[in-house]
Amino acid sequence: MERQFIEHLRERLPSHPQLLLGVGDDAAILRLAQSRDCVVTSDLLAEGTHFVLPIHGSLNEILPRVGRKALAVNLSDLAAMSARPLAAVISLLLPKRNALTVAEGLYDGLLPLAEEFRTAIAGGDTNCWDGPLVISVTAIGETTSHGPLRRDGAQPGDAILVTGDLGGSSTGKHLDFTPRVREALLLHQRYDLHAGMDISDGISLDLARLCQASGCGALLQAAAIPISDAARAVAAESKSGRTPVEHALSDGEDFELLLTAPASVAEQMLRDQPLDVPITRIGQITEQAGVRIVEDSGAARDLAPAGYEHGS
Amino acid sequence: MERQFIEHLRERLPSHPQLLLGVGDDAAILRLAQSRDCVVTSDLLAEGTHFVLPIHGSLNEILPRVGRKALAVNLSDLAAMSARPLAAVISLLLPKRNALTVAEGLYDGLLPLAEEFRTAIAGGDTNCWDGPLVISVTAIGETTSHGPLRRDGAQPGDAILVTGDLGGSSTGKHLDFTPRVREALLLHQRYDLHAGMDISDGISLDLARLCQASGCGALLQAAAIPISDAARAVAAESKSGRTPVEHALSDGEDFELLLTAPASVAEQMLRDQPLDVPITRIGQITEQAGVRIVEDSGAARDLAPAGYEHGS
Repeated sequence: MERQFIEHLRERLPSHPQLLLGVGDDAAILRLAQSRDCVVTSDLLAEGTHFVLPIHGSLNEILPRVGRKALAVNLSDLAAMSARPLAAVISLLLPKRNALTVAEGLYDGLLPLAEEFRTAIAGGDTNCWDGPLVISVTAIGETTSHGPLRRDGAQPGDAILVTGDLGGSSTGKHLDFTPRVREALLLHQRYDLHAGMDISDGISLDLARLCQASGCGALLQAAAIPISDAARAVAAESKSGRTPVEHALSDGEDFELLLTAPASVAEQMLRDQPLDVPITRIGQITEQAGVRIVEDSGAARDLAPAGYEHGS
Repeated sequence: MERQFIEHLRERLPSHPQLLLGVGDDAAILRLAQSRDCVVTSDLLAEGTHFVLPIHGSLNEILPRVGRKALAVNLSDLAAMSARPLAAVISLLLPKRNALTVAEGLYDGLLPLAEEFRTAIAGGDTNCWDGPLVISVTAIGETTSHGPLRRDGAQPGDAILVTGDLGGSSTGKHLDFTPRVREALLLHQRYDLHAGMDISDGISLDLARLCQASGCGALLQAAAIPISDAARAVAAESKSGRTPVEHALSDGEDFELLLTAPASVAEQMLRDQPLDVPITRIGQITEQAGVRIVEDSGAARDLAPAGYEHGS
């Protein structure tokens, strides 16, 4: 199956000015722009663990979304570093019984996203087996002239900002989100950002990581957290008693940007609102370690890092 | 399990002068040497498909060999391009019941090989599930001042050369082979090579691919094929009736280098024998498409591309 499929795939792959050699040799060759560094990230999605395929019924609807997501989570990691995407390599473990259909379905979702973000498909490894579907993607990007945006640069007094709104991603956004690549590149180019990452496991866990990396803490304002309609709907329907803001803080898979910047820079960003999605100030970085949150009542409490441990 | 394991792993990872940012952020950052291109390859190994773990008995012996192989096949692909290894990212799907033991066992074999070939472990994704063990590795290298060695450069009249000996790899070499990185870099630096690849699926299949990429054919001498002791042993024991040379031609997973060079260059290489392993001339590139082999009897026949279709 593999040879046929790869021949077929090669015809579908668009060329890329920085991909000197693509699928077909032992490895691919990429040319980075001069004086740029190579940014690398990898994420694996497995059936039953990261997504579910219907046992009965059509795979036509879900497979493209899974293929798209497998690339999107990696592009989100490049966005988190404010790196420009260049290429991705895709390794597949396909269920034997319908390997070709599954592979084509995945690429039906993956290829349009790759094209949208000018990401070359530079190769990979396609295998069949008796087990569930597994997709492992490695994405490669390059830094811009502004350098990478790291998570260890936050400083006490920085404002904490997020793009978009948070929570309830499991109702659909976790599959269909748009990685914030364009947003990260624009913000990093225009403003003096101190630190950044993407929100994959929920603010309460991811902000704790950013703070730990930067050797500081954070104070959030519960009233300022941008809660998504999905988070409100999930909270209304669930019997867990968790509030919408709790969903927004810990559901995870938002794939929005979490940023810190000096207060004056943040004010400028909030005035400019230069993105198609809102930028919201949710708190500030503190010298004291740990993440605390000021409730609507005005009382502050420690925010336990709770979220979906989704990967490294 | 993941967080604990990654903390533990980070302490074990050696630094690398070209790894500017390693495990711990959303992505890793690599600095290539000036004017070098980035070479990328990916290979995935799955339990039950690419290797077998004992159901009873200790995993201590096999896991490090599997971890080592998962990196080695990728380093072999970099060698095939004559690229210098820089880094690897490792994505794991670990069986839940003994995830930590399995992960540590894999890294016990992987890390010494990474160190031997100065390959930084730049990150990855560690997951647990109810399924079998899966390891997906992406390796990143850089071209040298001699550029990449591609498989599409063979020319009629070129001598066809291989390193080492071939066949019977399933008796052990397929797990414990040394990727021919040093050999490829030395040969590419010292001699005018036209084309190269690694032998992963057997000469008869891989040489057909090289010829197809180069738009030419090949004529092999059966008497010249370097047959491994393992291939002879397998032929003696098996009831398939396949001869040692047939094993050498199609067993696959030799991970030796398959090279072409002008006849005069090849003669110099054979006189010099500059490697710790032998270089053998096994035939020559022809204008006429297809791979043919001259038997010991003197008769020539078409060599059907038969081998283990092991991956792209």
